[in-house]
Amino acid sequence: MIEDKNQERTPLSHLGEFALIEHLTKNFKINHASTIKGIGDDAAILNFKDKKVVVSTDLLVESVHFDLSYMPLKHLGYKAVVVNLSDVYAMNATPTQMTVSIAVSNRFPLEALEDLYAGIETAAKIYNVDLIGGDTTSSNTGLLISITAIGEVEDKKIVYRNGAKPNDLLVVTGDLGAAYMGLQVLEREKEVYKINPNSQPDLEPYTYIVERQLKPEARKDIIKLMDELNVIPTSMIDISDGLSSEIIHLCKQSKVGCDLYEEKIPLDPVVISVCEEFKIDSTTVALNGGEDYELLFTISQEDYPKIKANPNFTVIGFMKEAEAGMHLVTRSESQIPLKAQGWKNFNA
Amino acid sequence: MIEDKNQERTPLSHLGEFALIEHLTKNFKINHASTIKGIGDDAAILNFKDKKVVVSTDLLVESVHFDLSYMPLKHLGYKAVVVNLSDVYAMNATPTQMTVSIAVSNRFPLEALEDLYAGIETAAKIYNVDLIGGDTTSSNTGLLISITAIGEVEDKKIVYRNGAKPNDLLVVTGDLGAAYMGLQVLEREKEVYKINPNSQPDLEPYTYIVERQLKPEARKDIIKLMDELNVIPTSMIDISDGLSSEIIHLCKQSKVGCDLYEEKIPLDPVVISVCEEFKIDSTTVALNGGEDYELLFTISQEDYPKIKANPNFTVIGFMKEAEAGMHLVTRSESQIPLKAQGWKNFNA
Repeated sequence: MIEDKNQERTPLSHLGEFALIEHLTKNFKINHASTIKGIGDDAAILNFKDKKVVVSTDLLVESVHFDLSYMPLKHLGYKAVVVNLSDVYAMNATPTQMTVSIAVSNRFPLEALEDLYAGIETAAKIYNVDLIGGDTTSSNTGLLISITAIGEVEDKKIVYRNGAKPNDLLVVTGDLGAAYMGLQVLEREKEVYKINPNSQPDLEPYTYIVERQLKPEARKDIIKLMDELNVIPTSMIDISDGLSSEIIHLCKQSKVGCDLYEEKIPLDPVVISVCEEFKIDSTTVALNGGEDYELLFTISQEDYPKIKANPNFTVIGFMKEAEAGMHLVTRSESQIPLKAQGWKNFNA
Repeated sequence: MIEDKNQERTPLSHLGEFALIEHLTKNFKINHASTIKGIGDDAAILNFKDKKVVVSTDLLVESVHFDLSYMPLKHLGYKAVVVNLSDVYAMNATPTQMTVSIAVSNRFPLEALEDLYAGIETAAKIYNVDLIGGDTTSSNTGLLISITAIGEVEDKKIVYRNGAKPNDLLVVTGDLGAAYMGLQVLEREKEVYKINPNSQPDLEPYTYIVERQLKPEARKDIIKLMDELNVIPTSMIDISDGLSSEIIHLCKQSKVGCDLYEEKIPLDPVVISVCEEFKIDSTTVALNGGEDYELLFTISQEDYPKIKANPNFTVIGFMKEAEAGMHLVTRSESQIPLKAQGWKNFNA
């Protein structure tokens, strides 16, 4: 659906690899003093002096991680970058550079890749990240994007997953479940479109959740805010797979247990109403939906006054001794063991 | 052909993503003091202090860059790493860490990925590179490998592509064209196999060139040797696309011209005889074959005494003013303009 909108189409075979990379990256600027050499040599050269270097990498595959029938390529480029940067922020670090590699089939004209790179460029500008390299190659089917993000952090500010202690508070930013419900709405509209291509979907009531799915943001603002509030979490992770799975990561790596309070889980009113519409339990969605790209972290109780009045943060539980296990405390005060929904890609 | 050899096959769907990564990477050791945190958090943390950081990335796609009907997965894993490290050496740097991401379809059992990672592990050991991260996901077709290599280099030793000066000598390591001719032999055997699966190919006479194709090495030894000889090239690149294309890169980025002497191009005797067998001109193969992963560099003439007796190096030409152009000087002393064969992947 996306590709047909474009009237002028330039086959990729008209360009060589170098001409293609040069064309797609010509608007990217280098902003960081740490970027000594970007695109154009065998490798990039960076200079971090006394800072620690943070490296994170992600692979996004068409029809596994995204569906181009409702994901515009510009959004895809933006999201691919954001997803990666989110991991760097989750170390309490600041992303500074990235490499972007794509494998793409002949069915994509040059104009499609220009759209993709327009999204990448927008994200690079907003998050202030230099593009320093990449690889562009053909694939036999579909589109694949591989991004490696590099960032910097002062030694004493690094936050790992393994520093949570019993009695630490469990805190989450923003609200949960919206990206997953946005996906449900988009999937439903796709089915409607298949049956009746002339139907005009009214997505207006779903704007917030569709945007959370198609154009998520990484919580750059939170890293800055915590720095200003003088809060260094004891452990931190970003929410890509769902709250439940991420809590389990923090607990296992920190060797602690946890009580998560169902009533404290932050949900947007739109998520609650769309969950009712789809007859899905909103807690299940928040626990297992994923793709929220919010930050989940633990702080020692003495830091609580620093965050308590701030609408960006919700305390959703607290850490316990490992032996106590990991539980969801429901509204009816029953305790349910937390489970990771796990990763189902290979079952598809 | 490869997969059928294995009797025990474990479907990837039996494992989750985390279990799979943990299983595949459990034998990898961290050897570098600069690796503060490897696999197991949102991102890796590195510490380069006063060294410059080198970053290089590559994407290898099944049936575009490799053919599993004659490329064993262990070799593929090894080669995927080597190809990437070669770019780091081409900056006169030392690779220290890497991330490895793979997208893989259900047709690969766990044992196939174990073979792939055995090759990656062997390369990591031989080249002393820490695996610090990656992503593992499913694909709808085939196998894709994305590697980002990270290295370090002292400021004053960095060698870019753009430092060649007129009268500098053009030098290449090893010999050229073997990997390409190895591929021709493997392609021929594949066709024979298709017609008669019981035929037993005798690849013995082709051992050197087949190994250059299936298990190339990056010239780690040359970086060490040049350091010992106290030679810092004025420009350098690795030969992945073919001598001609790489010379053009050096000339264009350095804004110089070049005379390349056909009679000086180093060829292994096996390459010469197999070129005769295939009725292909060996100079054409050296110029355009690619995948040699030798280093091509320029040095100022005063450094010539340091390298002249060394069998690792062959002086194949010299740099001129840009206006003189880039030429191959043939054995009959005619001058032919150098051309890049370019990048044909998208025409496939």
